[in-house]
Amino acid sequence: MSVLGQLRAELGDLVDTSPEALENARADKSGHRSAEAPLAVVHAEAVEHVQAVMRIASATGTPVVTRGAGTGLAGAANAGGGEIALSVRRMTRILEVSPDDLLAVVEPGILNADLNAQLLTHGLWWAPDPASKAISTVGGNIATGAGGLLCAKYGVVRDAVLGLDVVLADGRLIRMGHRSVKGVTGLDLTSLMIGSEGTLGVIVGATLKLRRIVPGDVCTVAATFRTVRDAAVASSAVTAAGIQPAIMELMDPHSLAAAHALLALPAPTPGSAQLTIQTDGPAAAVEADAIAAVLTGSGGTVAVTHDREEGERLLAIRRAMHPAMETLGTALIEDVSVPRSQLAAMFDEIARVEREHGVVIPVVAHAGDGNLHPNFIFEGPEVPASIWEAADDLFRAAIRLGGTLTGEHGIGVLKRRWLADELGDDQWRLQRDIARVFDPQGILNPGKVFEA
Amino acid sequence: MSVLGQLRAELGDLVDTSPEALENARADKSGHRSAEAPLAVVHAEAVEHVQAVMRIASATGTPVVTRGAGTGLAGAANAGGGEIALSVRRMTRILEVSPDDLLAVVEPGILNADLNAQLLTHGLWWAPDPASKAISTVGGNIATGAGGLLCAKYGVVRDAVLGLDVVLADGRLIRMGHRSVKGVTGLDLTSLMIGSEGTLGVIVGATLKLRRIVPGDVCTVAATFRTVRDAAVASSAVTAAGIQPAIMELMDPHSLAAAHALLALPAPTPGSAQLTIQTDGPAAAVEADAIAAVLTGSGGTVAVTHDREEGERLLAIRRAMHPAMETLGTALIEDVSVPRSQLAAMFDEIARVEREHGVVIPVVAHAGDGNLHPNFIFEGPEVPASIWEAADDLFRAAIRLGGTLTGEHGIGVLKRRWLADELGDDQWRLQRDIARVFDPQGILNPGKVFEA
Ligand SMILES: Cc1cc2nc3c(=O)[nH]c(=O)nc-3n(C[C@H](O)[C@H](O)[C@H](O)COP(=O)(O)OP(=O)(O)OC[C@H]3O[C@@H](n4cnc5c(N)ncnc54)[C@H](O)[C@@H]3O)c2cc1C
Ligand SMILES: Cc1cc2nc3c(=O)[nH]c(=O)nc-3n(C[C@H](O)[C@H](O)[C@H](O)COP(=O)(O)OP(=O)(O)OC[C@H]3O[C@@H](n4cnc5c(N)ncnc54)[C@H](O)[C@@H]3O)c2cc1C
Repeated sequence: MSVLGQLRAELGDLVDTSPEALENARADKSGHRSAEAPLAVVHAEAVEHVQAVMRIASATGTPVVTRGAGTGLAGAANAGGGEIALSVRRMTRILEVSPDDLLAVVEPGILNADLNAQLLTHGLWWAPDPASKAISTVGGNIATGAGGLLCAKYGVVRDAVLGLDVVLADGRLIRMGHRSVKGVTGLDLTSLMIGSEGTLGVIVGATLKLRRIVPGDVCTVAATFRTVRDAAVASSAVTAAGIQPAIMELMDPHSLAAAHALLALPAPTPGSAQLTIQTDGPAAAVEADAIAAVLTGSGGTVAVTHDREEGERLLAIRRAMHPAMETLGTALIEDVSVPRSQLAAMFDEIARVEREHGVVIPVVAHAGDGNLHPNFIFEGPEVPASIWEAADDLFRAAIRLGGTLTGEHGIGVLKRRWLADELGDDQWRLQRDIARVFDPQGILNPGKVFEA
Repeated sequence: MSVLGQLRAELGDLVDTSPEALENARADKSGHRSAEAPLAVVHAEAVEHVQAVMRIASATGTPVVTRGAGTGLAGAANAGGGEIALSVRRMTRILEVSPDDLLAVVEPGILNADLNAQLLTHGLWWAPDPASKAISTVGGNIATGAGGLLCAKYGVVRDAVLGLDVVLADGRLIRMGHRSVKGVTGLDLTSLMIGSEGTLGVIVGATLKLRRIVPGDVCTVAATFRTVRDAAVASSAVTAAGIQPAIMELMDPHSLAAAHALLALPAPTPGSAQLTIQTDGPAAAVEADAIAAVLTGSGGTVAVTHDREEGERLLAIRRAMHPAMETLGTALIEDVSVPRSQLAAMFDEIARVEREHGVVIPVVAHAGDGNLHPNFIFEGPEVPASIWEAADDLFRAAIRLGGTLTGEHGIGVLKRRWLADELGDDQWRLQRDIARVFDPQGILNPGKVFEA
């Protein structure tokens, strides 16, 4: 029987070959799409469905591309010709919330924001907060090792997962990690799964480490600076002062102008850049005032509010970044990360790349942790070669500064060709060989991450 | 040429075959020692020495046992007949401290306390604080995934390492991880190394994530309870109240009595157990008072001090645990960890094991994270079979409660035979096969962790 026939025989209606479903599975939000549509989309609703797909796939040597919500920015969830797109988006149950143990056990397809809405009723939250939290899944967040605005203070996904249930390439189910806070039994496979982009197995369950809702106020500080370099230096001064903001976002002049235009706000002073900072917890007000003093001392024009709603209004400019970029053209959203002390140097490098390649690169940065999102803007659906050349220059600059290609979006298809530059050939091969232990036939997301 | 001849030719005086050195390399602090002495101890002083050893070892198929300070409690650093003991204890340099990036780059052999003494001069610290911090190495802490008293609030080793330099089995050097806070380039090999107990490679350098010294007071709360169960329930009440102490240690009646005797303090009320709790940071006093109220409400007799020295005096009783056990006989120090809510249930299980096996098991617990150290006391150097039977019963109880065999000490030789019980056969094999990718010949710490 054909692969499709076998899938249908075992999974019936869960197998979807409608043109819309197939078309949809070809792309994520990276702007990249696969050359051909996949064989089928399977909408798994339970662990057994995932196991059935993997058994058929390994018996027939058919590639499988796991998919959460498809909001990835690296093309990692894009399924192509001859491949099965395995969606876990319908697996949305919360199996347990334990306030005593500060943990939740969930299925992978639940949206981050839906989970957090439920947790809120228990006075709890799961800290990872990608800007896409309303539209991305917990499983996708884990598989990409997602970060977010709050992560300098409250951690990334890597800090917030206790254990994972994983279906291996051949359909076997294994449980990694613990329910206890501590545990060092053997190798830490849970961490290995985080950020593995669908190459090691299918995450079908997650035991998440929760936090209690932070009591107290949220205060917001917005400061404008004459140049983006001044803003970067000021953000380093905040960190150096030993204050840990919950959020510290930096917008460069291009992105600030675009966001203002989108929101129909008065245009900012040309060339000016902005820091938007939030503090929280019992010391929020004291910290906000201390930060305001540091920023003023660094030449910023500073506004502070202790009002949560007014704060959200200030942060709305930052949150408008992504739609604002879409008004400019097609955006390739990059994701380099550098040691915090190198933030200003990285902005210098971006200015150099803009000059030398004749491109405009609006940037927003999670300044608290040195993660920058340079947006390369171009016309049409395909990233032109000239843009990739500018991006290449940028990536190498980040690595030179002690940084990395990707702080939170991952490698997928878009950054495969730079992976060995960062890892070195020896480590690249070691990583690929580890993936082969999980997946000897190479059917899990082939061509992603490791293929050159 | 013989292996020893090759080592001598390349490494000269660094090769030590003195009877004391060989004898010393046979054991760690677990009470377990290898049947025969190793071939030689090599005292590496630089990365190249480690590479030279590994090249000779892989060319000749000779097993290598990496060793830090030999304070491990699982027998993982014990070197036996025909093996090379590779000590990195002399590699103690601090290569960089960056207050701006909150990181340090160090060699693996530096003692945790020596590093922290240096960091203090920069207003910084590396948070992992095993009770053995004065005598154990940073490399050993990483290779075991060590925890400590402060880890419920400030994290374990896993939360405090950005990158590692690792010499592979064949002598190649690779650099894993980043200097940046964030980074998701490929698989997270840094995490995989943490807790790998010398089975994947030799850690020759570490980029550590630092914290700023916590400003403010340290307050200490000591509370005695009628029974250990009452103390466990009270510690859960503290967690449930949403207060995060820096330290929360629980001593059962046996260990409390032994520590008092050692320190020549008046004997505690028979049967009584103690919680010793510290709070720190700007809210230390407020939190200490809140905790005192919770403990009083839970039936405790409570003393609070805002004085740092008086606090250290109270904590000294807890710190006397290990020497106090040595006054009772030989101690097998166990290390189960359970979800916090199961702490009282685990104490019930320990009481059952004591009854059913006719043994006495003094226990100290990191109550803030559910990690217990039951001490099995016996006469003579060898752990008797009857003690292993009691321990076996205890391990299975911990796993049944959703916990793990080992919260921080690792598997080594002592817990190999229970590893598959916790991981399941499929995951056990997967982990072992991953180790084989790093070490195809199986020369890195063979017989540890994975061998049954
Ligand atoms: C507007 C916008 C803002 C964004 N902001 C952020 C941000 O702040 N921080 C950030 O980190 N990212 C951000 N992203 C990127 C994206 O949302 C994240 O990468 C997210 O974690 C992807 O989740 P998803 O469910 O959409 O996964 P998908 O895109 O469906 O999949 C992503 C990868 O994970 C794998 N995968 C998904 N589910 C599973 C599973 N259950 N088991 C195994 N593998 C799986 C896929 O195979 C693929 O490799 C943003 C994206 C957009 C469009
Ligand atoms: C009194 C006492 C109290 C203790 N308290 C704690 C505690 O609170 N928390 C805790 O977690 N542990 C504790 N321990 C256990 C022990 O101190 C830790 O496991 C410590 O991390 C071991 O460090 P070490 O340098 O002594 O390593 P060793 O014992 O020399 O080695 C331990 C393991 O790590 C490997 N290893 C060492 N260095 C390297 C390297 N550079 N590269 C690769 N592998 C390496 C060895 O091969 C071995 O497998 C305690 C021990 C004692 C004696």
